[in-house]
Amino acid sequence: MSHTGFGASGDVDPDLPLTPEGLTYHVTCTAEHLADRIVLVGDPGRVKMVGTFLDKDSICYEASHREINVITGKYHGVPVTVMSTGMGTDNVEIVMNEVHILKEYDVEKRQWRTRVGETPKNADEKLFDPSKVKLIRVGTCGSPNDEVAVGCLAITQYAIGMDNTCQYYEAPAVNHTADVQEVLKKVQATTLGKVQVYATKAAPAITNGLVESCKILNSTLPAAEQQAYYVGTTCSGSGFYGCQGRSVGRFRGHLTVPHLTDELAGLRFNVSEGVQRVSNIEMENSALCYLSNFLGYQAGTVCVVIAGRSHAHHAFATPEQTAKALSNGLTIALETLTRN
Amino acid sequence: MSHTGFGASGDVDPDLPLTPEGLTYHVTCTAEHLADRIVLVGDPGRVKMVGTFLDKDSICYEASHREINVITGKYHGVPVTVMSTGMGTDNVEIVMNEVHILKEYDVEKRQWRTRVGETPKNADEKLFDPSKVKLIRVGTCGSPNDEVAVGCLAITQYAIGMDNTCQYYEAPAVNHTADVQEVLKKVQATTLGKVQVYATKAAPAITNGLVESCKILNSTLPAAEQQAYYVGTTCSGSGFYGCQGRSVGRFRGHLTVPHLTDELAGLRFNVSEGVQRVSNIEMENSALCYLSNFLGYQAGTVCVVIAGRSHAHHAFATPEQTAKALSNGLTIALETLTRN
Repeated sequence: MSHTGFGASGDVDPDLPLTPEGLTYHVTCTAEHLADRIVLVGDPGRVKMVGTFLDKDSICYEASHREINVITGKYHGVPVTVMSTGMGTDNVEIVMNEVHILKEYDVEKRQWRTRVGETPKNADEKLFDPSKVKLIRVGTCGSPNDEVAVGCLAITQYAIGMDNTCQYYEAPAVNHTADVQEVLKKVQATTLGKVQVYATKAAPAITNGLVESCKILNSTLPAAEQQAYYVGTTCSGSGFYGCQGRSVGRFRGHLTVPHLTDELAGLRFNVSEGVQRVSNIEMENSALCYLSNFLGYQAGTVCVVIAGRSHAHHAFATPEQTAKALSNGLTIALETLTRN
Repeated sequence: MSHTGFGASGDVDPDLPLTPEGLTYHVTCTAEHLADRIVLVGDPGRVKMVGTFLDKDSICYEASHREINVITGKYHGVPVTVMSTGMGTDNVEIVMNEVHILKEYDVEKRQWRTRVGETPKNADEKLFDPSKVKLIRVGTCGSPNDEVAVGCLAITQYAIGMDNTCQYYEAPAVNHTADVQEVLKKVQATTLGKVQVYATKAAPAITNGLVESCKILNSTLPAAEQQAYYVGTTCSGSGFYGCQGRSVGRFRGHLTVPHLTDELAGLRFNVSEGVQRVSNIEMENSALCYLSNFLGYQAGTVCVVIAGRSHAHHAFATPEQTAKALSNGLTIALETLTRN
C-alpha cells in the first residue's frame, strides 16, 4: 500500500487536519501502518537506504509527502517504521504531534485513547501504554568537542534546545531534575543566555541501549574497524550557519553568539552520570526528546559527526567515513529499538 | 546539467562547506546556475510543478539534495531559479546563507565580492549590487483573520517571527523604524511576550509588485474567477501544532500560547500604510524577510490560505481551491520577479 500526499476535501478540521481515513496532514500514514518502533532520519533521500536494513520483502507500507518519507517493515521480525523528518525542530514538532495523533487518537470513534493507569471509558477498552512508543533519530552533526573526531558516533544523554520550538510547550517532569537544571544553568551562563534556550534529557533506556548495542557491534568487528562513540550533550540549533556560530560573508561580525562552538566546548556538566561535555550540534534532537518526554514516549539520538569544528579536529568527513559510521549508527539504532 | 548531492571529499571547510567546484552543502548549485530572481516554495514536490510555468525547453539546470530541489530556467525570457526550502525558518536560514555564498563568494579567488558603493579590490573588479537579488516565497498558510477566507492569497507587508532563528543575527536597519517597532510592541503585549519574538518587513517593492500583479491578473479573469488577496502581517511559527496554537491530545491545556489565533486576530497595527492586521500564519517568511533585509536583497511572500482558523472562516481548502489559488500565486510571483 502507498500514499503520496494529503488529498482530502470536505470536512477537514483546520485545527486537527485528518482525512476521513485517518491520514495525518504531513505524515501520510494511518495508525495501522505506523509501528511502535520508529527510526527517524533527517534526509528524505535516506529512508530508502535504511529500508535495505529491514528484513527481505518485509516492507508493507511506503508513503511520501513533502520531506516526510515513510516506510514500514520488519527488522529481525519486529515491526519498524522508518521516517524522514526533514531538517529542523519545527519539522520534528510536526512529526511528534502526528505520531501522537496516529498512536492515540481513535479516528473512527473520534476520541483520544485512555492510557494505562487511567479509568477506562468502558470495560472493553484496550488501554494505551505510551512507553511502548520508541523513537531513535539517526542523523549527522558537527562537533565542537576536541575529544570527538569526524566519523565518531555522538550518542545523546542530555539535550540543549537553542531553537524555541519547545518554548511553546509546558516542560516535561524530567526538566525539573537537578541534572537537567545543571545543564540549563551552565548553558544560560554563556552568550546563549541572550537567547531563550532550554534543556532536557534523552530516555536513559535509549541512551544506554545505544551504548550497549555499539559495544556488541564492536565485539564483532576487527580492531581496525572499531566504531568510535561518545556520550554527551547534544545541542540543537534553529539553523545551520549563524545559529551554529558559522559566520558567512556579510554576517561576519553580526552574529549574536559568534563564539558558539568555543563556548559550548568549554562547558562541563556535573550530572548523575559523572562530568559530561557537549558532544555535538545538530538541528532536531531537542524537540524530539522534549516532546517525547512530555508524551511519555522513549526517544534518543545517535549522530555521525561529519563536521569537526574543534581546533583539534577541524575537518569534514569524507563520503566513505560518513557512509561507514551511518551504517553502524543505523545498525545500533535498529538493534536498540527491537531488543526488548 | 544536474547534481544529486554533496559528494565532496578532502579539503572541505567545516565552517563553510563548499566543494572545490563551488557547490554549497545543502543547495546543490554553483553560482553559474543560480539566477538573480528566485521563487521559493516549501514543498519539494512542488518545484517540478512550478517548472511547468517556465518557458518551454528553457530549463538548463536541475538538482536535488535533501528537501531542497532546484531548477533554473526562464520566464518570459528572463532567468529564474525555482527552489524548495522545505519547512521552517531553520531551512530558510540555510537557503539564505547559501544563496549569499553563491551570489557573493568567488570560489576561484576564495574571496567575497566587493559591493556597489565600496572600494574595488582592483580596477577590473565588477561590483555586486545586492538589490538585484529578488526572492519571492509562494507558500501555503493558515489565517486567524475573519476577513480572510480559504483560497485567498495573503500578501506579506510586515513579518512577525515567532521562531528564534533570526535572534542569532543582528537586526537589519528596517527593524528600527517606527512601523516595525509598532508591530513588535503590539505582538509582545500578547501572550507571545513570554517567548522572544521579532518583527521585520517585506521589501515594499515586492509587496507592491505582488498587489499590482494580482490586479493585472484579475483584469484578465471573468468576474466569477477573480483572485481574492489580502495584504497584512505574516506570522511565522517554529512548528505547526502547539507553536501555532493547535492543541493536540495530551498537549491540550499545556501550551504556552493556547489562544494564539484569537490573540493575533485581535491585533491592529498603526503603520505608514494605514491600519493593518495579521493576515496569516506559516513557517518560513520571518527568516526570509529578516535575512534578506540584512543582506540588502529584496524579498517577500504570497501564500494560499488553506486553513481558515477564524470563527467566521473555520474551514480547510479543497484540493481544487488550493490548486487554483496556488497557480495564481505562482503567476503573480513570476510576473513580479521579472517585470523590471
